[in-house]
Amino acid sequence: MQPQYQMGYDRAITVFSPDGRLYQVEYAREAVKRGTTAVGIKCKDGVILLVDKRVASRLLEPESIEKIYKIDEHIGVASSGLVGDARLLVDRARVEAQINRVTYDESIDVDTLAKKICDHMQVYTQFGGARPYGTALLIAGVSEGESRLFETDPSGTLLEYKATGIGIGRAAVMKVFEEEYDPEMDVKQGVHLGLKALHAATEGKFDVTTVEIGVIEVENPVFRKMEPEEVKAFVDATEFETPAGEE
Amino acid sequence: MQPQYQMGYDRAITVFSPDGRLYQVEYAREAVKRGTTAVGIKCKDGVILLVDKRVASRLLEPESIEKIYKIDEHIGVASSGLVGDARLLVDRARVEAQINRVTYDESIDVDTLAKKICDHMQVYTQFGGARPYGTALLIAGVSEGESRLFETDPSGTLLEYKATGIGIGRAAVMKVFEEEYDPEMDVKQGVHLGLKALHAATEGKFDVTTVEIGVIEVENPVFRKMEPEEVKAFVDATEFETPAGEE
Amino acid sequence: MQPQYQMGYDRAITVFSPDGRLYQVEYAREAVKRGTTAVGIKCKDGVILLVDKRVASRLLEPESIEKIYKIDEHIGVASSGLVGDARLLVDRARVEAQINRVTYDESIDVDTLAKKICDHMQVYTQFGGARPYGTALLIAGVSEGESRLFETDPSGTLLEYKATGIGIGRAAVMKVFEEEYDPEMDVKQGVHLGLKALHAATEGKFDVTTVEIGVIEVENPVFRKMEPEEVKAFVDATEFETPAGEE
Amino acid sequence: MQPQYQMGYDRAITVFSPDGRLYQVEYAREAVKRGTTAVGIKCKDGVILLVDKRVASRLLEPESIEKIYKIDEHIGVASSGLVGDARLLVDRARVEAQINRVTYDESIDVDTLAKKICDHMQVYTQFGGARPYGTALLIAGVSEGESRLFETDPSGTLLEYKATGIGIGRAAVMKVFEEEYDPEMDVKQGVHLGLKALHAATEGKFDVTTVEIGVIEVENPVFRKMEPEEVKAFVDATEFETPAGEE
Amino acid sequence: MQPQYQMGYDRAITVFSPDGRLYQVEYAREAVKRGTTAVGIKCKDGVILLVDKRVASRLLEPESIEKIYKIDEHIGVASSGLVGDARLLVDRARVEAQINRVTYDESIDVDTLAKKICDHMQVYTQFGGARPYGTALLIAGVSEGESRLFETDPSGTLLEYKATGIGIGRAAVMKVFEEEYDPEMDVKQGVHLGLKALHAATEGKFDVTTVEIGVIEVENPVFRKMEPEEVKAFVDATEFETPAGEE
Amino acid sequence: MQPQYQMGYDRAITVFSPDGRLYQVEYAREAVKRGTTAVGIKCKDGVILLVDKRVASRLLEPESIEKIYKIDEHIGVASSGLVGDARLLVDRARVEAQINRVTYDESIDVDTLAKKICDHMQVYTQFGGARPYGTALLIAGVSEGESRLFETDPSGTLLEYKATGIGIGRAAVMKVFEEEYDPEMDVKQGVHLGLKALHAATEGKFDVTTVEIGVIEVENPVFRKMEPEEVKAFVDATEFETPAGEE
Amino acid sequence: MQPQYQMGYDRAITVFSPDGRLYQVEYAREAVKRGTTAVGIKCKDGVILLVDKRVASRLLEPESIEKIYKIDEHIGVASSGLVGDARLLVDRARVEAQINRVTYDESIDVDTLAKKICDHMQVYTQFGGARPYGTALLIAGVSEGESRLFETDPSGTLLEYKATGIGIGRAAVMKVFEEEYDPEMDVKQGVHLGLKALHAATEGKFDVTTVEIGVIEVENPVFRKMEPEEVKAFVDATEFETPAGEE
Repeated sequence: MQPQYQMGYDRAITVFSPDGRLYQVEYAREAVKRGTTAVGIKCKDGVILLVDKRVASRLLEPESIEKIYKIDEHIGVASSGLVGDARLLVDRARVEAQINRVTYDESIDVDTLAKKICDHMQVYTQFGGARPYGTALLIAGVSEGESRLFETDPSGTLLEYKATGIGIGRAAVMKVFEEEYDPEMDVKQGVHLGLKALHAATEGKFDVTTVEIGVIEVENPVFRKMEPEEVKAFVDATEFETPAGEE
Repeated sequence: MQPQYQMGYDRAITVFSPDGRLYQVEYAREAVKRGTTAVGIKCKDGVILLVDKRVASRLLEPESIEKIYKIDEHIGVASSGLVGDARLLVDRARVEAQINRVTYDESIDVDTLAKKICDHMQVYTQFGGARPYGTALLIAGVSEGESRLFETDPSGTLLEYKATGIGIGRAAVMKVFEEEYDPEMDVKQGVHLGLKALHAATEGKFDVTTVEIGVIEVENPVFRKMEPEEVKAFVDATEFETPAGEE
Repeated sequence: MQPQYQMGYDRAITVFSPDGRLYQVEYAREAVKRGTTAVGIKCKDGVILLVDKRVASRLLEPESIEKIYKIDEHIGVASSGLVGDARLLVDRARVEAQINRVTYDESIDVDTLAKKICDHMQVYTQFGGARPYGTALLIAGVSEGESRLFETDPSGTLLEYKATGIGIGRAAVMKVFEEEYDPEMDVKQGVHLGLKALHAATEGKFDVTTVEIGVIEVENPVFRKMEPEEVKAFVDATEFETPAGEE
Repeated sequence: MQPQYQMGYDRAITVFSPDGRLYQVEYAREAVKRGTTAVGIKCKDGVILLVDKRVASRLLEPESIEKIYKIDEHIGVASSGLVGDARLLVDRARVEAQINRVTYDESIDVDTLAKKICDHMQVYTQFGGARPYGTALLIAGVSEGESRLFETDPSGTLLEYKATGIGIGRAAVMKVFEEEYDPEMDVKQGVHLGLKALHAATEGKFDVTTVEIGVIEVENPVFRKMEPEEVKAFVDATEFETPAGEE
Repeated sequence: MQPQYQMGYDRAITVFSPDGRLYQVEYAREAVKRGTTAVGIKCKDGVILLVDKRVASRLLEPESIEKIYKIDEHIGVASSGLVGDARLLVDRARVEAQINRVTYDESIDVDTLAKKICDHMQVYTQFGGARPYGTALLIAGVSEGESRLFETDPSGTLLEYKATGIGIGRAAVMKVFEEEYDPEMDVKQGVHLGLKALHAATEGKFDVTTVEIGVIEVENPVFRKMEPEEVKAFVDATEFETPAGEE
Repeated sequence: MQPQYQMGYDRAITVFSPDGRLYQVEYAREAVKRGTTAVGIKCKDGVILLVDKRVASRLLEPESIEKIYKIDEHIGVASSGLVGDARLLVDRARVEAQINRVTYDESIDVDTLAKKICDHMQVYTQFGGARPYGTALLIAGVSEGESRLFETDPSGTLLEYKATGIGIGRAAVMKVFEEEYDPEMDVKQGVHLGLKALHAATEGKFDVTTVEIGVIEVENPVFRKMEPEEVKAFVDATEFETPAGEE
Repeated sequence: MQPQYQMGYDRAITVFSPDGRLYQVEYAREAVKRGTTAVGIKCKDGVILLVDKRVASRLLEPESIEKIYKIDEHIGVASSGLVGDARLLVDRARVEAQINRVTYDESIDVDTLAKKICDHMQVYTQFGGARPYGTALLIAGVSEGESRLFETDPSGTLLEYKATGIGIGRAAVMKVFEEEYDPEMDVKQGVHLGLKALHAATEGKFDVTTVEIGVIEVENPVFRKMEPEEVKAFVDATEFETPAGEE
């Protein structure tokens, strides 16, 4: 995936390579792979988002490293990749949600919102004069009484997942989910699974103060970020696997 | 078709090569050839579209990998190639169909719609500042009591087929059709033939859960996607050839 | 005509070569030379257009490979080269013809229409940001009781011919016409000559199902495409020369 | 004049070479030098334009290779170089002449028209995004009872001549004029001199059917193209010099 | 961080490198690292900003090297990097603050203002035709009775700090803060700590006349720059560590 | 001044060289240096302009090589360099003069006009998409009873001279003026001096038919071009120095 | 400062170098360094500007080499660098001053004007399609009873000085000022110091006829250029140091 010298096919978004690839889009995905890990899990009674913020310094206010955003009453988003790009997409999503409320007097469907964001991202992969977005989003919400969980990528591709992860720890996260995900889990069980996935992705360098959790339940479809105490309670209650060779 | 070093003639859509080729359009076709396989078959009583979605992970919601789209009451489309590009073309097709309804108070002809889409795609092969669409469409529908099946390509070329395929399995699909296609087939027989073609294209790695089938009949010209059970019934009832050397 | 390494003078339409040539226009002509063969013949009582569509597969609907288009009641066009480009020019020609009807309440002169198309094509040879059209047209019609037959090329040059051909078989076609064209032929004789020319251009690989013929007569100046039976009758009645060495 | 490797100073109209030259303008002049020969002669009672159209094939309608155009009642033009470019300039000239008539209710002065055309051509030598015009014009007419004969070139330079030539045969034409031009000639004598000049420029490969002559007389200042018979009479009555070594 | 030859991936803001980096943004950060040192400290009763202006010549008016700007009644900013860029951002911040006052009749929140500035900076990292801002800002203020301290960077990333530094002395500053910062400090103690940090950053080449200090207190949330005497009093009262090896 | 390989700093007007030069402006000056020689002389009772038109062929109408233009009643201009560029600047100057008359009901000051022309020329040295003007002007006129003589250059620099020259013979002209110019000369003496300067610049290849002289006197401030007879009289009355070594 | 081969980082204003520099801005500064020397001195009772115009030829009108401009009643400017650029900035400054008068009915503050000019210059260092200004200004004036003296540079940086110099002699000038400047000087003493600085900068090649002096006094805040006699009186009264080794 890490190409050598691409003979210039990778210098502009308006140029296909001879084998039909858009290298600039693939490089934008690398920006996502360098980002912090975010995971999303669809449960039978709701959807959850978890991120590891990797705060480096005690001088930093941890809450300023926002990685989970509330978009509308019933939709939340987690991001990975370029921070400035993510903020722009989040703002756009919020505006789309408001336009829908004002125009149709009802909240926007989660999949409608996800498509609008992806259509916007696609434009940056076809026209020159700008670069693709170097960010991916997990979009979680409840529409018509159903949990939805979407993942976008820099190409504008949109996929719905039962459970997924983005960012530097994606491979580790997906391994945990492939083995342990159960669609019958409730939100509580989901949070435990998500924490285990984050724990795996960070190779045990897991820090309770840097975990951010967002949740929305089907019964009460209001997206909210958990308070630090609630997060702490979940972390304390989760059984993490000791990495092989440690005790 | 896989050129080596094209001396720069392949870096921009606004540049012909010395032998009158547009390499960027040819490279966009490569993006289509990397896509999932889609097939279309014109039958005496309707048209059908089939795709193999190649779902990689159990964590993915299969229905989110949409490859067959309803454009208007009487028209459906299957796509192969860049996913974001296809969604854009599908949206455009839907809008064109609506404009026709509003302007002339009648549904758009299938060939009129296909031409409009291709005219749009041609523009991206003549003007700089953007890349061609990296996607191909099969457009199926019924106009004036007749089945129609069109195939578009990144150059904006439009062809009508009796039966055709796009994407990675095109060669295998066309071989099946050249040998077995019969214009007197009805829709049921057509679906069986289409499944055999998909089976051939996937070298037997055929999975019932990833097949999507769209159909429109002349008698009742409403395009619909088959429900999973209906698909399963067809798959179960189809006799697949065992690849040589297997049992 | 197939230049080697042109030191970059052939990379943009806005750059002359040191000897005053526009390579990109010459390369666009190569796109025409790769196209299917089309011929036009002016007869004493009308004009005819013939094309060989070279349909490759029985799965293709032959009539979808349109190469002869009706522009207005009294004008028809045959094209060779990039298919999407031709469709665009045809649409433009139709609109110009309609504008003339609406503005002056009369049909457009054949040469006026031809000039308008060529003026449009010239613009793409002088301004950057786009490529020249990779297509040539034969424009046939009747104005003021006279047959007209024009040929356009990617540079925007416009020439009127008694008989001419475009596309891959142009050289073979012109050889037949130089030897056998007679301005006193009537339309029937002209069709026979045109079929002989197409036969020569395809080296005998002549297929009745792929020939398309358009005709307009001075007496009844309405351009029409012949029905398949009419074409077949002409093909059956034409004496083709057996290529040397065959029997 | 045929530069080798100009280190890139010849790639854009917006770049001067170190010695203050605009190579792209010089290359455009080469396009003119590759064009057909056109000559203009100012006589005491009028001005004449003559061109050799070099028709290659008997299948071509000679009159479609227009090289002399009537611009307005009192102005005619001969062109050499890129055909499509010339047509564009001619159209522009006609529009300018009409605007003058409508605005001032009188015909445009020949020199005013010539300046307007040259101003337009200059713009294409100073601004990027387009190439210079690859064509030269001879502009002949009568204003205020006086004959005028102008020559434009791709740089937008405007010169008035007593007698001049453009295109591939310019050198040969100018040699004849330097030796034999006499301002006291009348139009008839001028046509004979012009034919001799064309004869010299074509090295004797002179063909009466391809000569086009335009004329305007001071007495009756209406520009007209001579009918073929009139041209033939002049050709028959002209004594051509036998090229050295022939009989 | 100082890349060698980046194969052209570092020549435009619209191009990702193969590993998903935007080199032009990273180079803009280098411009910040070459700037004068600025520090910000959040205290329990307010926020302070300190800069070292490094005035080189006695002929320069020190107050003209403005590095701390008042944005609105309750917000101040310190900058490092390109001086002209900083002035532009400061102007923009002032306008945003005024718009908020006029539109909502209340002062803008510190974090709202910081986000607007960062959104503006992000645009210059995604679209071509301009370069990113070569400047970073520390934004200090009081909103809803709380001290806020934000740091922006050329990518448009926004972080909130308890104490931070930008410019050439950032590393030295952060070392002092990591060791000695205490959130329970009051503004007076904070100024002493800030002066120590600046002292460390300038390796003892500390000059009282070039220190600029801005302060805002929660009790009386009006941002003000200290008068020279007040600065002097603080400098005189601060105990600086003697650099090792000096006396 | 004739640079070798400038490493690309000389390819665009928007790029400074490392030593702060704009090569494209310097190259435009070379275009001026290749132009015909023009001189201007301020006398105690008026200003004069003289040009040598270097007419190469007897077939050319000498008066069509206009090098001295009347701009307004009281202002004249002589040009050297690209002919098309000069015509454009002259047109612009005429329009500016007319605007002044219409707006303020009085004639434009000579220096105001000169500044406006230079401002226009400066723009072409700072913005991309066009090249600088390859022409210089001598602007002569009378404002408020005083003679004025300005020289512009491609950079937009404006200087007032007592006596100056532009074009290929500038060096020779200036040598004559440095030695012999006397501000107490009257217009007659000035013409003689100017002719001597032109004579020197053309190395004795001086031809009375190609000299053009413009003059404006303070007493009667109307700019006029001298009639050929008047020019002849001056030439006949001027004593030219025999170039050394000739008799 | 004179970089060798900058690997292309110095070809566009929109590209940072890897160490965060904008080479094109630095090259524009070189254009200033090649300009004539200008100095400004703040005195206790006013501000003065002095320039050495370096008139090369006795044929040049010295007053046409304007280097000191009056902007408004109370503001004057001296420039160094590209002459055309300076004129443009001066025009802009005059317009800004007039807009202020019209809008607020009062004269513009000197620092407000200086900031507006610098903001305008900064834009040319961030956006492509143009080059930075190759000029620096000294802006002198009186606002609210106080003398002000600003220096701008091509980056848009703005600094206030007690005494400063720009152009080729800057280093020599600053040396004189560092040693001899005294803020208690009055305008007369200031002029003497400025003349000594100019004398040093020109290495004794000092010519009274080429010195231009502008002055504004706090008591009577009207900027004026001194008459030649006044300048002469000052020059005569100034004691210049004999350069070492001369007598």
